[in-house]
Amino acid sequence: MDILYDCWLAYGKDDAMKWTERYLSRLCVLCIGRVISSAVKELETAYRRLAGKIPERISKPFSGGCFILRINGDFDAGGYGISVSDDNITVEGGDENGVLYGVFRFLILASGGYSPEKLNITEKPCYPLRMADQWDNADGTVERGYSGASIFYEKDRPVSDMTRLTDYARLLSSVGINAICINNVNVHKTETHFITEKFLPDIAKIADIFADHGIKLYLSVNFAAPMEIDGLPTADPLNERVISWWKCTAEKIYSYIPDFGGFLVKADSENRPGPHTYGRDHAEGANMLADALKPYGGKVIWRCFVYNCHVDWRDRSTDRAKAAYDNFKPLDGKFADNVFLQIKNGPMDFQIREPVSPLFGAMPNTNCICEFQITQEYTGQQIDLCYLVPMWKECLDFDTYSDGEGSFVSKKILGAAAVSNVGANRCLTGNPLAGANLYGYGRLVFDPSLSAKQIAEEWVRAALTADEETAEVICTMLLSSREIYESYTSPLGVGWMVTPHYHYGVDVDGYEYSPWGTYHYSDRNGMGADRTRATGTGYTAQYASHNEEMYEDPSTCPEELLLFFHHLPYTYMLKSGKTLIQHIYDSHFDGAEKAEGLLMQWRSLKGKLPEEIYSEAEIRFEKQLLNSRQWRDVINTYFFRKSGIDDIHSRKIYR
Amino acid sequence: MDILYDCWLAYGKDDAMKWTERYLSRLCVLCIGRVISSAVKELETAYRRLAGKIPERISKPFSGGCFILRINGDFDAGGYGISVSDDNITVEGGDENGVLYGVFRFLILASGGYSPEKLNITEKPCYPLRMADQWDNADGTVERGYSGASIFYEKDRPVSDMTRLTDYARLLSSVGINAICINNVNVHKTETHFITEKFLPDIAKIADIFADHGIKLYLSVNFAAPMEIDGLPTADPLNERVISWWKCTAEKIYSYIPDFGGFLVKADSENRPGPHTYGRDHAEGANMLADALKPYGGKVIWRCFVYNCHVDWRDRSTDRAKAAYDNFKPLDGKFADNVFLQIKNGPMDFQIREPVSPLFGAMPNTNCICEFQITQEYTGQQIDLCYLVPMWKECLDFDTYSDGEGSFVSKKILGAAAVSNVGANRCLTGNPLAGANLYGYGRLVFDPSLSAKQIAEEWVRAALTADEETAEVICTMLLSSREIYESYTSPLGVGWMVTPHYHYGVDVDGYEYSPWGTYHYSDRNGMGADRTRATGTGYTAQYASHNEEMYEDPSTCPEELLLFFHHLPYTYMLKSGKTLIQHIYDSHFDGAEKAEGLLMQWRSLKGKLPEEIYSEAEIRFEKQLLNSRQWRDVINTYFFRKSGIDDIHSRKIYR
Repeated sequence: MDILYDCWLAYGKDDAMKWTERYLSRLCVLCIGRVISSAVKELETAYRRLAGKIPERISKPFSGGCFILRINGDFDAGGYGISVSDDNITVEGGDENGVLYGVFRFLILASGGYSPEKLNITEKPCYPLRMADQWDNADGTVERGYSGASIFYEKDRPVSDMTRLTDYARLLSSVGINAICINNVNVHKTETHFITEKFLPDIAKIADIFADHGIKLYLSVNFAAPMEIDGLPTADPLNERVISWWKCTAEKIYSYIPDFGGFLVKADSENRPGPHTYGRDHAEGANMLADALKPYGGKVIWRCFVYNCHVDWRDRSTDRAKAAYDNFKPLDGKFADNVFLQIKNGPMDFQIREPVSPLFGAMPNTNCICEFQITQEYTGQQIDLCYLVPMWKECLDFDTYSDGEGSFVSKKILGAAAVSNVGANRCLTGNPLAGANLYGYGRLVFDPSLSAKQIAEEWVRAALTADEETAEVICTMLLSSREIYESYTSPLGVGWMVTPHYHYGVDVDGYEYSPWGTYHYSDRNGMGADRTRATGTGYTAQYASHNEEMYEDPSTCPEELLLFFHHLPYTYMLKSGKTLIQHIYDSHFDGAEKAEGLLMQWRSLKGKLPEEIYSEAEIRFEKQLLNSRQWRDVINTYFFRKSGIDDIHSRKIYR
Repeated sequence: MDILYDCWLAYGKDDAMKWTERYLSRLCVLCIGRVISSAVKELETAYRRLAGKIPERISKPFSGGCFILRINGDFDAGGYGISVSDDNITVEGGDENGVLYGVFRFLILASGGYSPEKLNITEKPCYPLRMADQWDNADGTVERGYSGASIFYEKDRPVSDMTRLTDYARLLSSVGINAICINNVNVHKTETHFITEKFLPDIAKIADIFADHGIKLYLSVNFAAPMEIDGLPTADPLNERVISWWKCTAEKIYSYIPDFGGFLVKADSENRPGPHTYGRDHAEGANMLADALKPYGGKVIWRCFVYNCHVDWRDRSTDRAKAAYDNFKPLDGKFADNVFLQIKNGPMDFQIREPVSPLFGAMPNTNCICEFQITQEYTGQQIDLCYLVPMWKECLDFDTYSDGEGSFVSKKILGAAAVSNVGANRCLTGNPLAGANLYGYGRLVFDPSLSAKQIAEEWVRAALTADEETAEVICTMLLSSREIYESYTSPLGVGWMVTPHYHYGVDVDGYEYSPWGTYHYSDRNGMGADRTRATGTGYTAQYASHNEEMYEDPSTCPEELLLFFHHLPYTYMLKSGKTLIQHIYDSHFDGAEKAEGLLMQWRSLKGKLPEEIYSEAEIRFEKQLLNSRQWRDVINTYFFRKSGIDDIHSRKIYR
């Protein structure tokens, strides 16, 4: 029992699931398979934690209390039912994964102190593809990782001790994740060779661990791999030698990993190679790889995060937000049926507030999945508290109007992928409270109809405490955290203003004159990016007309996105009756005050939580408070120096 | 012959020194010693280059042409005389170093095509201490190095091949450098152990190479070394065990390196340990080390670059510029006589324009040396052309008025140290034109009365071409380069505005809200740091009254330093009749235009210079042009957005 290490699989952290001992003491397993074995092991682990011994295996149900596992064809793939009676507890799954998911669901809820009657549950996954992306590098670093080194690699090799990977696979499958890409989308030199004999035997061992938990393994590949690995003169996707190189490569991979998931590809983006080099389009590039994988049932996940990262800040007509749509919309219908386009939730890059990408709903004849970021690159880096489920849910619930009212993003996708937030820290997610995001991502993508609150509650009770009163305080903190972080950082959707490269902490002009396409255009009169059709970059026109009209007009544009769409004077009057500049001051004073409130609320819980968890989080709340104050003062001073307008409440704004 | 590698010791690069063959063919060496041997080797190298063979050694002067080396007690230590007659060429030195310097001086001037009559020279060094500081780390990196990896270390060990170090020693001694500190003042874990048996045998080999060239070796030490190396509970300089630890350490070092120079120490600065931790002052810290070295004739070089790097930008009364004076002035007279305080030329940190440090002249009872930076950290990083000799000369020629008029800095010091700009690139200084700074530093500190122009000319002719017309073009470029760089970067002495950490390229607010104490305080009305006694931080009061009065009043303050000392409105009228804002626009348009001019001038020399030199520099002039344009546009847009004032000439300022 190690409450930091176990995350939300901390069976026996308190007395909440004591009542399950009677059932867990006898296991009746009426199905077989490698994933079923993992489910059985999980039940054994739980019972060992509770009772200090191994459950008895019985071959027939026993009415005096037992735990039954069974496949039931009436359920969908990945679906399951849990029934609790006085005699026994039965978990039935539509397939092996369903059984495993049901077992985890039971254990998590029981461990969270939910009463037996609440455990009679039937669920099924909303989407077939529910993926985690690791941005881990072979050298042991993790791009945008804030939880320590990689758990997958060290010193340019896959790790040899698989303990941590097994526990990570348990966590992922416990929330229904069924696919993982194990290396960074930026495929460097060493990782380019992952698809060669030099690495495949080790990669296959990792694949085995995940396969035991019903999770298919994917690899990020370098589009120029035929050149870099075998010295081909080109990586042109229409070149016969290149085509046959990838076919041979696919064959080789599947000889090591029979259930290999496929490739994740970042091409023609941020200086990565891609089909554009050869005058080919993304469809030609993706389809060539898809052809190579098709005989084995593999997929190509092709990222739509494609934009020019060498724009000229001087040219206010260019707009990075338009890039994904401009690049991919013309290709709708041209992708093979085992290609999935991976579209980031917003048009920029995982900011704390963005509109939903206009590409959702715009690709009716293409397989699309949504990409989220669990690791908190721009959202506090696992220091500042930021529960992201509400943000992701906004995206899934967004009405694209692509086929009229009710064309929600959630209906336009076949799944999701998300950049993981785990690393080698004792607490897998660095900040123990960041576990809510990893848990929440899995749960939300399994069932998008869940509320952010329900997910938070499940997680808090399983991972931290089954005490309802304490759990309630923490849930409230989690649910307010995104608005708090937003209020002391960049205002009204304008984004960025972060320290270049690191992306933590404030630097208002850090990206203002850069080639990255990320500008707020503040001058002495006003600020914001004009993305209207009428006077700006025309980005609004990428939305279906209902949304286009809403965003085009500042009076109907949601105020939290006002500066994403409009350049407005500091004296612009908001619906609140405040000027824009006064809103900036107010929200920043308020945000820093609420960050202090979070620390105070956390401190009020001292003694009510496991000490390791308490103190790991407390350190971070203290840092968050400093961060929020620096943001508050820099933003307020920056805009005071520019606007010359005083705070109407005469609070301290440094000159 | 490798013109890039040889730097200014490129004997035989053209026909200029053909006439010396007759003398060099016979060497008459009338003195002995390890440094004399190096002088002889140098003459042999030159002759081999010219004639393809080894000179004959003769024991008595020969009137048909020979080269005579001799010690002559009439000369000072390090001083020398060169006389050229029809019969022979004689180099006489006051000591071995003098002979070596004379030989180099002869060869450099001859190789530069100076006529025989110009080679009858008598010179002597102005200061006893003429030092180069390496910021090289054991891992092979160089802090603020722009010429490739370290030539001293790789993989946490000193290099085993001494070829490059020997050639570096030749270059240093050729301009009279007589001391070198071979590791970074920021002493990390590995380098802390340089003073132990684990490293001393290898360090001694390096010391030998430099001793052959009359250069004493110093080491940067970690003030906390007794704790880190031997686990002492303290590094308190008054603690008996600490005192005796350093004495033993000194004894051990001298057993390996009998002519060891001493320690260079960065203490209580930028998070380095120091005496303040134990409630002791810098004198107590330095004197303890000095005591340990004294029996062997060693010195302690103690840096005055001490300031609080955690200041609060919100507090406009704090002033980093005041730190060195505030820290050291009260300690004048308290340092042992083998302690030398190393004072940076300006009060901040090697900016392109700073006033001279008020500490010069303020320490009449203390040994002081001046610290310059040859490596172009803030001055173009060996990409942008920036000949630094004029800037250093301004510092040495500055009248401190500490003892009335004529109290020049050059009279207040006992020598200088400078951070070297060399690395493992084929061209030791990265940009071949950056060789002028390494050469120029040595020459200027040997004889501060030399003009920047004379030094530039010597260097160009020896290192690039003896062709007078071509040399003239390059000299003009060098001599204008500092003003050009200044004109497109931060205006009127305000400094900084660079990309944080990297220090190349523009980021106006990059350090504006940082803890580093480096602010321009621009708002919609004006800019600059008020450092006056009357209304500002009171920094001006650190100068003798004549200078204090000059700086205190904007109308008498040198305009190039106006924003260093004063916060002024954009509409402030300069002596030129331009407003401050118009000056900013004009100088930035002008600077970028002149950067383009440098590229054009360089291109006009294609074919007149060795191709490797031409192309290595051309690439950099092209980058400089881009850099200057980015600076121009960002600065102009930044200040237009803030001030709202248009360029009176209606040139393009992006909105």
